[in-house]
Amino acid sequence: MRMSTLFLRTLREDPVDAELPSHRLLVRAGYIRRAAPGIYTWLPLGLRVLGKIEQVVREEMTAAGAQEVHFPALLPREPYEATGRWTEYGPNLFRLKDRRENDYLLAPTHEEMFTLLVKDLYSSYKDLPLTLFQIQTKYRDEARPRAGLLRGREFIMKDAYSFDIDDAGLERSYRAQREAYERIFTRLGLEYVIVAATSGAMGGSRSEEFLFPTPSGEDTFVRSPGGYAANVEAALTAVPEPVDASDLPPAEVRDTPDSTTIDTLVSQANALYPRPDRPWTAADTLKNVVLALTHPDGTDELVVVGLPGDREVDLKRLEGALEPTLVAPATDEHLATRPELVKGYIGPAVIGPNAGDDGEDRTSLRYLLDPRVVPGTSWITGADAEGKHVFGLVAGRDFTADGTIEAAEVRAGDPAPDGSGPLELARGIEIGHVFALGRKYAEALGLKVLDENGKAVTVTMGSYGIGVSRALAAVAEATCDDSGLAWPMPLAPFHVHLLATGKDPEVFAEAERIAAELTAQGIEVLLDDRPKMSAGVKFADSELLGVPLVLVVGRGLAEGKVELRERATGERRELPVGEAVDAVAGAVRSALAS
Amino acid sequence: MRMSTLFLRTLREDPVDAELPSHRLLVRAGYIRRAAPGIYTWLPLGLRVLGKIEQVVREEMTAAGAQEVHFPALLPREPYEATGRWTEYGPNLFRLKDRRENDYLLAPTHEEMFTLLVKDLYSSYKDLPLTLFQIQTKYRDEARPRAGLLRGREFIMKDAYSFDIDDAGLERSYRAQREAYERIFTRLGLEYVIVAATSGAMGGSRSEEFLFPTPSGEDTFVRSPGGYAANVEAALTAVPEPVDASDLPPAEVRDTPDSTTIDTLVSQANALYPRPDRPWTAADTLKNVVLALTHPDGTDELVVVGLPGDREVDLKRLEGALEPTLVAPATDEHLATRPELVKGYIGPAVIGPNAGDDGEDRTSLRYLLDPRVVPGTSWITGADAEGKHVFGLVAGRDFTADGTIEAAEVRAGDPAPDGSGPLELARGIEIGHVFALGRKYAEALGLKVLDENGKAVTVTMGSYGIGVSRALAAVAEATCDDSGLAWPMPLAPFHVHLLATGKDPEVFAEAERIAAELTAQGIEVLLDDRPKMSAGVKFADSELLGVPLVLVVGRGLAEGKVELRERATGERRELPVGEAVDAVAGAVRSALAS
Repeated sequence: MRMSTLFLRTLREDPVDAELPSHRLLVRAGYIRRAAPGIYTWLPLGLRVLGKIEQVVREEMTAAGAQEVHFPALLPREPYEATGRWTEYGPNLFRLKDRRENDYLLAPTHEEMFTLLVKDLYSSYKDLPLTLFQIQTKYRDEARPRAGLLRGREFIMKDAYSFDIDDAGLERSYRAQREAYERIFTRLGLEYVIVAATSGAMGGSRSEEFLFPTPSGEDTFVRSPGGYAANVEAALTAVPEPVDASDLPPAEVRDTPDSTTIDTLVSQANALYPRPDRPWTAADTLKNVVLALTHPDGTDELVVVGLPGDREVDLKRLEGALEPTLVAPATDEHLATRPELVKGYIGPAVIGPNAGDDGEDRTSLRYLLDPRVVPGTSWITGADAEGKHVFGLVAGRDFTADGTIEAAEVRAGDPAPDGSGPLELARGIEIGHVFALGRKYAEALGLKVLDENGKAVTVTMGSYGIGVSRALAAVAEATCDDSGLAWPMPLAPFHVHLLATGKDPEVFAEAERIAAELTAQGIEVLLDDRPKMSAGVKFADSELLGVPLVLVVGRGLAEGKVELRERATGERRELPVGEAVDAVAGAVRSALAS
Repeated sequence: MRMSTLFLRTLREDPVDAELPSHRLLVRAGYIRRAAPGIYTWLPLGLRVLGKIEQVVREEMTAAGAQEVHFPALLPREPYEATGRWTEYGPNLFRLKDRRENDYLLAPTHEEMFTLLVKDLYSSYKDLPLTLFQIQTKYRDEARPRAGLLRGREFIMKDAYSFDIDDAGLERSYRAQREAYERIFTRLGLEYVIVAATSGAMGGSRSEEFLFPTPSGEDTFVRSPGGYAANVEAALTAVPEPVDASDLPPAEVRDTPDSTTIDTLVSQANALYPRPDRPWTAADTLKNVVLALTHPDGTDELVVVGLPGDREVDLKRLEGALEPTLVAPATDEHLATRPELVKGYIGPAVIGPNAGDDGEDRTSLRYLLDPRVVPGTSWITGADAEGKHVFGLVAGRDFTADGTIEAAEVRAGDPAPDGSGPLELARGIEIGHVFALGRKYAEALGLKVLDENGKAVTVTMGSYGIGVSRALAAVAEATCDDSGLAWPMPLAPFHVHLLATGKDPEVFAEAERIAAELTAQGIEVLLDDRPKMSAGVKFADSELLGVPLVLVVGRGLAEGKVELRERATGERRELPVGEAVDAVAGAVRSALAS
């Protein structure tokens, strides 16, 4: 390919909406171009890289025994209605009507359709196990599309689905996909961390995310020195052992005027009721937070969550635990409907299993506790009356809850739940996600097969996604530097960027000869044959485009010399022009083989 | 690939909605599966064939100098608003809103976006000529999706766009694409006819369609022995020479009671005013038909079209001539608004340039004549009064029109407009369409470049489409027979279908060995290794799937023999098992090379 005719215009200015280097550089280097918010056009260079990534994914999927199919993006409402996702996806789903006023959607993922296809064609345990995949365009109406390809509204995914007769089969299929993902990201040269994850709108029993660790990532995850790793939404608390509370004194209601926040409560407690051995701290208080849940069927519910006063509620973790239910802080309007809740003084006595009949004809609110509030621990908490708190209220002895929930923020230094050491927090970009779905979709859509005894059994499924266009951006993000992109050889749009510089016709003729020889050997050459462009511009463009090897044919040719540069390292060496073809071809082959 | 694990279930029953053999067989053989009306899922076999067709298209596009890009399918309204197509496409366009209530569409074709992209990046005549293409999923909300892939609502197209500084450049780009199309359809093994076409919603100065001739096609076209060929909508009339009318008597109004149809008029004329030399026929009458036009801006207009009484109005031809205006017969309500039009007796005296002032404050209706109504010809036509016609009204002498229009149906036997002989009518499937768009889109969207003198000039464009998924169906339609599909080697999902029949383990082991040897040589083998399937079922499936070579390893193996069949011809020959690999590999290579 010749630069003189390649459809490319490199840009000196950063796009105004670009936050991340990968986004900025992919636009400036002419790989992609924005068509609408979160919607991009692939230009020739970008499409070449994308094709190479797709090919890696396809090869590894096939090697893992998955078979390729291709579903439409435009799908009818009914299957998504059957699983509840037509509603659950909320405003993230692009919905439309056809000319007959039938409802359609642009699919964000295809569990329903794969389930129905297998139901349509297969009927026996002998047909299983089966794993199908596609590389296909997906749609998601993101509230805040960002960072170019990293969070788009139209994007390319590889999605795979496994079908098994029993749990052991699902485990094998899940493992096979998980291992294929490890091979894929290794081949893409992408560092990854596998973290426990919540299942989100997908449902299912278990899931793990592949995160590319980078400070610019949108996902926060925790990991311990001993190997525990989880998305922060899915991170479990190291639950302390229950405490023996048999010697603790009875709880006592005390006046705590003007103590509607944890800070003021702690001050008042230390001022009015100092403790001899050490001062009260926020960690001694039990905070009861009222939350408004919106369930997928559209109904609302108020619940109260209790957690140590030194921790904030993490709404994303709560939503992770309650998916697909949405969670928001309760408003004053909400609180006004429940007069038993005294703002700033809410205590467990009036909620959950502790609530006595207050004379009103209504059900008590559900009460959920953070796992840190273990039986036998003693707390200062609201006494459900203006200006009063109860001191020494013991969990399990004086109050109970309807259940526990991961409600509190995770902090660096918190112990890992498996005892593998203190957690560190880091950020990453989700590049893959594997789900053991179980039977949710098969049950909703009636996918059963006959087992060996002729009995109809529900199939168990897995779902496995890789953001293909996002992976491209992640590779760009991982490899770029201040001057531009710097592709690894297997993904680069071309293997070598051959620059003819200066005005000497012999230089251009020699560059053409070298390009022809390399091309004949199967090496992909981008030849900068632009006749009137300065060497400076050519070098800058070459840095920006990020082809891994750069061969410069210029002034040195008069002395029989050319220069070979490595884009990523900046290493340069002069070599005799007669050795250029072998040197380049050798370097390309060794980079592709490694 | 092994049949025992291939995701495939062949069906014995035809799908209920299938009209055409290709549709029926592609579904029954497990190549595609319907997801919604006009929306299909590609199963593994179908996807393999599709990939091979795409590759042929890609290679020929690249060879023709076109560069591949990839646009989104989900696009904002504004560019399509600027060219008027947001409205012109009418109910054929899938429209939707995003979460911010912005208007989007699913693109049926991408002229606007390519124009804007080139405007965005290029600015000089030095950047041209340029031809870009994509292979991409398109959407069109067809009123009547039919025939599986032939008329779908989600389908795959190759669309290319050329950009040139002047008309001569456009002509070269158009030629290059047209020639690439000829090579593509030749490589696909698809017979094609290139016909003159109307431009439809695309606009532009000139276009040609590539039709695959088949009686089941939706397009009607005409062709002459001398090489004229046109879609019937675009077919031009062989216009007779003007006649010398100087000796003709003056026109005369006569009573013709109860003559509101051409049939009754001809009867009355012969009964009341017989002509000595020969009887009056419908060809002697001039029929004036009132039509209701709906213009793209939403306004309506009544026009009158005059044509010989022995021809019917062809609304599709009229729409072709008037695109993007819609055409329908006028209703009684329409006629009631124009009392000068006497139903059954409408004549040219009250319409177009012939209309005198009738005292009412209104403009005369436009009057358009079929080209057959040449100056100097004499007609019987309505006298604009109940029960009266005028005889001997001479075109050009007694009445004129606002213009001519191709209004009448074309009939077999009509002369070709270029004198190349009588036309025959035939049907075909549109598999490609090339448009010389000219400057319509560049003007609407402001695509200009600086010419050699630094002057901004509007770019001229071409647009070139191939229905890739439709081409697959056309190949299936062209090659299938009663037993199933029969792919040409370059497009077949596999090169050879290797059947192991019977129960002898040695047969299966030998088939495995042959499959492995062929695979090692790069031959694509589908191995029917299903252990408990009868030979009859395997043969039937093999006929249905249509892999071009079928190698049967069965009972004959005991005598060292296998059987090689050609799917298309049914030819069979026995050969020694030791020669099987060479025979198959040789046959595949020679079929691919031819």
